[in-house]
Amino acid sequence: MSKRSAVPPPVTAVLDASSRWLPARMGEVEERLRVEIRDHGEQLGEDAASTLAAGGKRLRPMLVLLCGGEAGGESAVRAATAIELVHMATLVHDDVLDQAPLRRGHPTVAATSGRARAIATGDLLLSRAFALLARAGDARSVALLAEAAVSLARGELAQRQDAFDTGISEARYLDRCRLKTATLFECAVTLGRDDEELRRFGARVGLAFQLLDDVLDVTGPPERTGKARGTDLLDGTVTLPLILAAERDPGLLTIDLQGLDPEGAEQVCERIAATGALETVRARALDLVAEGKRKLAAVGFDGEGRRLLELVADGMVQRYS
Amino acid sequence: MSKRSAVPPPVTAVLDASSRWLPARMGEVEERLRVEIRDHGEQLGEDAASTLAAGGKRLRPMLVLLCGGEAGGESAVRAATAIELVHMATLVHDDVLDQAPLRRGHPTVAATSGRARAIATGDLLLSRAFALLARAGDARSVALLAEAAVSLARGELAQRQDAFDTGISEARYLDRCRLKTATLFECAVTLGRDDEELRRFGARVGLAFQLLDDVLDVTGPPERTGKARGTDLLDGTVTLPLILAAERDPGLLTIDLQGLDPEGAEQVCERIAATGALETVRARALDLVAEGKRKLAAVGFDGEGRRLLELVADGMVQRYS
Repeated sequence: MSKRSAVPPPVTAVLDASSRWLPARMGEVEERLRVEIRDHGEQLGEDAASTLAAGGKRLRPMLVLLCGGEAGGESAVRAATAIELVHMATLVHDDVLDQAPLRRGHPTVAATSGRARAIATGDLLLSRAFALLARAGDARSVALLAEAAVSLARGELAQRQDAFDTGISEARYLDRCRLKTATLFECAVTLGRDDEELRRFGARVGLAFQLLDDVLDVTGPPERTGKARGTDLLDGTVTLPLILAAERDPGLLTIDLQGLDPEGAEQVCERIAATGALETVRARALDLVAEGKRKLAAVGFDGEGRRLLELVADGMVQRYS
Repeated sequence: MSKRSAVPPPVTAVLDASSRWLPARMGEVEERLRVEIRDHGEQLGEDAASTLAAGGKRLRPMLVLLCGGEAGGESAVRAATAIELVHMATLVHDDVLDQAPLRRGHPTVAATSGRARAIATGDLLLSRAFALLARAGDARSVALLAEAAVSLARGELAQRQDAFDTGISEARYLDRCRLKTATLFECAVTLGRDDEELRRFGARVGLAFQLLDDVLDVTGPPERTGKARGTDLLDGTVTLPLILAAERDPGLLTIDLQGLDPEGAEQVCERIAATGALETVRARALDLVAEGKRKLAAVGFDGEGRRLLELVADGMVQRYS
């Protein structure tokens, strides 16, 4: 089994900057994830453990804990664990859909254990998330997380419906991003603390996260992203970089995505980059993060709470700069 | 879109025999299922609606309602809807795994809309189930259903782990049946009413249900079962009919299931049937149902409640006789 990769820089920055309670709680979340994933007998242990081992940024759990604050205690740790389990479930299922061999540079469950086991593993992670919250009698958190999981699935369905359609609008793309990504960030902050402005913060940084993820798919490099350049194009997923690039280079609209091979996808990536669209998308993402951070002013965090949330938001951007 | 198939005989028998509240509540469950499945925009409507339309026996919702009794009211209707959504989710995902073209004689979501949409549709149905219960603040039901969903996924994983192994033990097979099938029946009765003896009833009729399902896979005929004879064999799923048949005809142990084609699978089915193993499995299932029915005596249902539950249990057997 592969070793868990090192905690990535943005998270490290937040942990370093925080007072003692946050690193300890993040450690508890890791331990909980380990228990939730291992405690099953069956072969699952290895599959799911390798997903877990692949690490990831743990951004959603960190947002739950930061928004819940030190007083969030056990209930925040539980919610943080549950939201990461849901996130993991979607990654495991996405990898079946995309037939991805690698995720974060590690082999996917689908690649190592086959499609069948990957589907069941995703179902198990999803069910465990709800079981964990429900056992503690936390119906509010189950409701928030289940609605977010509904959004994730709807987003996936919308993306499949749009597949290979180079004519989709920016508005449609943004809707999909909200369903697929932003909602889960919004859910994370709300699991920590229920506040309208905080939700807006979560929605904005979540949307920024997806925009930057889509930029990264075009820029690569694979050694850093853990997947080939143009993977979205090969899957038929039209994202904002292509939508904006096609406004400047309309020939891009006529490319037959279904006939694309990896080399062709790289060439389309170059062509998108040549339009300057990537800078535009990055600037939009930065605006969203800045806007999100301004929302925090109204929430009434203490100095440290707000500073750490800002660090998380900045970290999302830095990892792509 | 295909029309919903007629309600199958065992369910009809129970509805006919019941006083007025049960048919009305079952109707409410159908209506709820329709709302939960349609209310999404996106392409999902059609996929999921066709799954819904394929009908099914609605045995699990009926068990929830019967065990909850007339006083179960709205809360029982909600739980009945949720458990059927979970059941549907597993069917949709199973069809991806098994690459099944038909389910109950209707094209599967996987066949009509592809693997990608089928995985997302299953995730959506599963998440909707928990969202429905959690919105109503019913943490107890979420906990029961989530633990059952965990069992389903573990059962699926165990089955994949055992695939193509003709040497698996009866005990292992029975464990898998409990995880994959019996637990959800146990959950259904418990959602209706929390009682130790009632749980035992649910576990036994659930196990009987799976045993008879496995017999049916060997006997066919496809026009009745909606799938080819020997589908389990082709998937590498070794079930009790084969395990018992091999005790009488040890040559069966040496068959290479991975090299089997549909014609070969039919021949193995004949060979299993020739050993008389099917009668043995059927007799075991009947014993389980009888044992389950005896457990009801201790639960303290009114006359009608108990009689209807017995009818459901008997109906499970009759559908295969």
